[in-house]
Amino acid sequence: MAKREKPDDARPKARLPKGMRDVPSAEVRGLERMLGKIRGVYELYGFEPLATSAIEFTEALGKFLPDQDRPNAGVFSFQDEDGEWMSLRYDLTAPLARFVAENYDALPKPYRRYQTGSVWRNEKPGPGRFREFVQFDCDTVGTDNVAADAEICMMAADALEAIGVERGQYRMRINNRKVLDGVLETAGIDPLSDANTKQRLTVLRAIDKLDKFGPAGVELLLGKGRKDESGAFTDGAGLGAASIKILLDYVTAPAGERGATLAAIGKLIAGSERGRQGAEELAGIDRMLTSAGYGAARITIDPSVVRGLEYYTGPVFEAELTFETKNEEGETARFGSVGGGGRYDGLVARFVGTPVPATGFSIGVSRLYSALKALGKTGAEAARGPVLVLVMDKTDLGTYQALASKLRQAGIAAEMYVGTSGMKPQMKYADKRGSPCVIIQGGDEKAKGEVTIKDLVAGAKAAEAITDRAAWTEGRPAQVSVPEGDMVKAVQEILARQGA
Amino acid sequence: MAKREKPDDARPKARLPKGMRDVPSAEVRGLERMLGKIRGVYELYGFEPLATSAIEFTEALGKFLPDQDRPNAGVFSFQDEDGEWMSLRYDLTAPLARFVAENYDALPKPYRRYQTGSVWRNEKPGPGRFREFVQFDCDTVGTDNVAADAEICMMAADALEAIGVERGQYRMRINNRKVLDGVLETAGIDPLSDANTKQRLTVLRAIDKLDKFGPAGVELLLGKGRKDESGAFTDGAGLGAASIKILLDYVTAPAGERGATLAAIGKLIAGSERGRQGAEELAGIDRMLTSAGYGAARITIDPSVVRGLEYYTGPVFEAELTFETKNEEGETARFGSVGGGGRYDGLVARFVGTPVPATGFSIGVSRLYSALKALGKTGAEAARGPVLVLVMDKTDLGTYQALASKLRQAGIAAEMYVGTSGMKPQMKYADKRGSPCVIIQGGDEKAKGEVTIKDLVAGAKAAEAITDRAAWTEGRPAQVSVPEGDMVKAVQEILARQGA
Repeated sequence: MAKREKPDDARPKARLPKGMRDVPSAEVRGLERMLGKIRGVYELYGFEPLATSAIEFTEALGKFLPDQDRPNAGVFSFQDEDGEWMSLRYDLTAPLARFVAENYDALPKPYRRYQTGSVWRNEKPGPGRFREFVQFDCDTVGTDNVAADAEICMMAADALEAIGVERGQYRMRINNRKVLDGVLETAGIDPLSDANTKQRLTVLRAIDKLDKFGPAGVELLLGKGRKDESGAFTDGAGLGAASIKILLDYVTAPAGERGATLAAIGKLIAGSERGRQGAEELAGIDRMLTSAGYGAARITIDPSVVRGLEYYTGPVFEAELTFETKNEEGETARFGSVGGGGRYDGLVARFVGTPVPATGFSIGVSRLYSALKALGKTGAEAARGPVLVLVMDKTDLGTYQALASKLRQAGIAAEMYVGTSGMKPQMKYADKRGSPCVIIQGGDEKAKGEVTIKDLVAGAKAAEAITDRAAWTEGRPAQVSVPEGDMVKAVQEILARQGA
Repeated sequence: MAKREKPDDARPKARLPKGMRDVPSAEVRGLERMLGKIRGVYELYGFEPLATSAIEFTEALGKFLPDQDRPNAGVFSFQDEDGEWMSLRYDLTAPLARFVAENYDALPKPYRRYQTGSVWRNEKPGPGRFREFVQFDCDTVGTDNVAADAEICMMAADALEAIGVERGQYRMRINNRKVLDGVLETAGIDPLSDANTKQRLTVLRAIDKLDKFGPAGVELLLGKGRKDESGAFTDGAGLGAASIKILLDYVTAPAGERGATLAAIGKLIAGSERGRQGAEELAGIDRMLTSAGYGAARITIDPSVVRGLEYYTGPVFEAELTFETKNEEGETARFGSVGGGGRYDGLVARFVGTPVPATGFSIGVSRLYSALKALGKTGAEAARGPVLVLVMDKTDLGTYQALASKLRQAGIAAEMYVGTSGMKPQMKYADKRGSPCVIIQGGDEKAKGEVTIKDLVAGAKAAEAITDRAAWTEGRPAQVSVPEGDMVKAVQEILARQGA
């Protein structure tokens, strides 16, 4: 670059705030493709789109996050000219509740909508944890019919398959808050008493560690507590042996064929009316899934799903990717959760004063995209740049633009080089853009009414050795000269050869 | 709804902050379609997508708005945990400048990107003016080649046609800051002196009123000033008669065939080196456009384009829709501008200290969508809701879900009614959703292995009269019973009959 005009310290730094990121082109395209396919499935199920504003009154958002691990979840807030506090939305559910409450009478009931968009959290960022990220939600509001829950699970399974996650690489896992409450009741813990909140959370957290510490570890956490390898001690829930056994039997119930799981659950909640209700809801979901042909290879009932149980009021869902991949520590592990949801009745009630039943599912878009990347299914793998028309004579740009136009008219992405540099930087540019081929029309070619097309994929190696125009003209690696009228056809052949 | 649980004053109000809005489903779909088509054109020209974060450091955004009518344009700002000020982006250009400066070495040069997304302005909202709105930008950074400017105009024209604005319904208008500067110079006003800023702005504002007040009005505003019908007086630029004549000749130069406009301009900037440069840039753009086959029916050179001239440093572009429509006051008027842009060299320089030439174009997405709506080309006109499978027996939901599944497997948007209400509300629901038809399988039909399909478009009137199941069963308006195995085919026939 030319010499600087201002001293360094007078200039702002080109940088992003912590936890923010720019999404590069391949990912924008891959996300667009992925979100489009999910949208297609959701539309097929009769869900309709909605877009709410990014900014809401802080009061309207409230604080309802399903993820209990982040109790201090913060929002970005500022005041309007009247001093009222506004916030950036931290999820898509709270704005939905506001929207439904505001438009209740005009909406069809049940109201079924999907929405995708950025949400913001004023939290400590970390690896893979950003302050702005995209969610893709679907919700059915205004019915307590578990058919709505079953359908959302089917739809999520269909969406995963539509984007390229194959059957067997994922599992939708369903649990039910009421069933857990029933088990707690059977185990002697009142599930609805405020006095038990802390103990209940400790129990949930213990169950959530099944994957990590196994049944023996959970047993310790449900009882007196557990010391880890470093010697650090985690307090337990302080339950007695009989209670612990009931809870362990629950979380380790087989999550294979849904009928077997339902039978195992049935025994553990005998005597709890709330538990019976929950089990009946799961049985209803099972019947729906079975009728529609969704077996346990796609959707299981799984008592070890704990996440969000404290937040949701009935069925909860989790989409888990079951294929193995390397985690952040380089260990081989299941990919894990890419979305979750469930039934919640309190959100709209905040505004209207009466319970409005609702159920929904939210996809963590970045995480799902990472999974597609791990599977090589983002579609970005096949992406290529535009065909580049080289500028051989700067006084004759119209000629090259006309060639680029012809290619575009045939539906081929193409550009004339619009910089001002010479041959070598132009070839470098084509390389950087991932161009499949370049179009060359020097004076000789123009006189003959021809163009030369260089296949950059076939010619990649040879191109590295070329340093000047003379060598180029002699060598002509992986290139072909055709009459100008045949250019489009010749380029199409090269593209076909390279694969779509 | 059931009785309320909380007193009114304990509940938050379900409402949006001023200037915010929810986008309903038809518009979300129509926008998606429109943006997808624009994206397709931009990709065809070799532009690649980028998505930057919504939040930037306030310092990095600076204050660079092309619209001089809103000097107090505000942003939404808040502080991070270290006390640094962050803001929501107010356009997509300032973040692009930050991105380019931050990644300069890694980017191909020229760098060509498009981006679409929300921007936020903390300004007084009004009719049609929101605090959150969507822009669609394309920019070429790192070249002063006017081929890049020409291409952006061609691309914008192609994009308008791709979304359904026909040739003749729009015009891309090009002007050049340097040409105006040359005319000012010829008229005796130093275009680069800071001492003249106020007078120059008054001149620009006067020229901008050509549409409204005609040449006679502009003449007054360039001279002593103008009194309007209410008696209010607007101060003029105080120019002498000779200067006024030059400026009037300039803004009223014919904006038809580009060659004629260029000839008229040439006479007015004789003697100004800066003006000559600008005219040469326009001539270069004209040559490119002509070679690529873009005539004056699509792209004109138009000296009356003033908007943004104070901000841009070379060519400026405006996309005008020329068809007539009713404006907010109910008067018939041209639809007007839906986008604008031009060449600006200062933005990246803020960070890196050296000028980085750039040119770009920004579409006001909501405004363009309004235009499509006025033209009946949003695609929402042909939209319809999902086929609804009615629930006749609540204990047999699996059966209905299976029917809905079958339709979806054939690519037909379909849902089983997931509410809990009876026949009449279900029919109302289908109506509200815009369902093309409903599927009915009562006990009799099930016994015979049949389904009944009711065409809601054909049967719209008859349906209103139906109050109970008995009347329904007798009347059977616009409905057909077919074996279950023929359901998909029969629905496809109804959809085809209704038109896609």
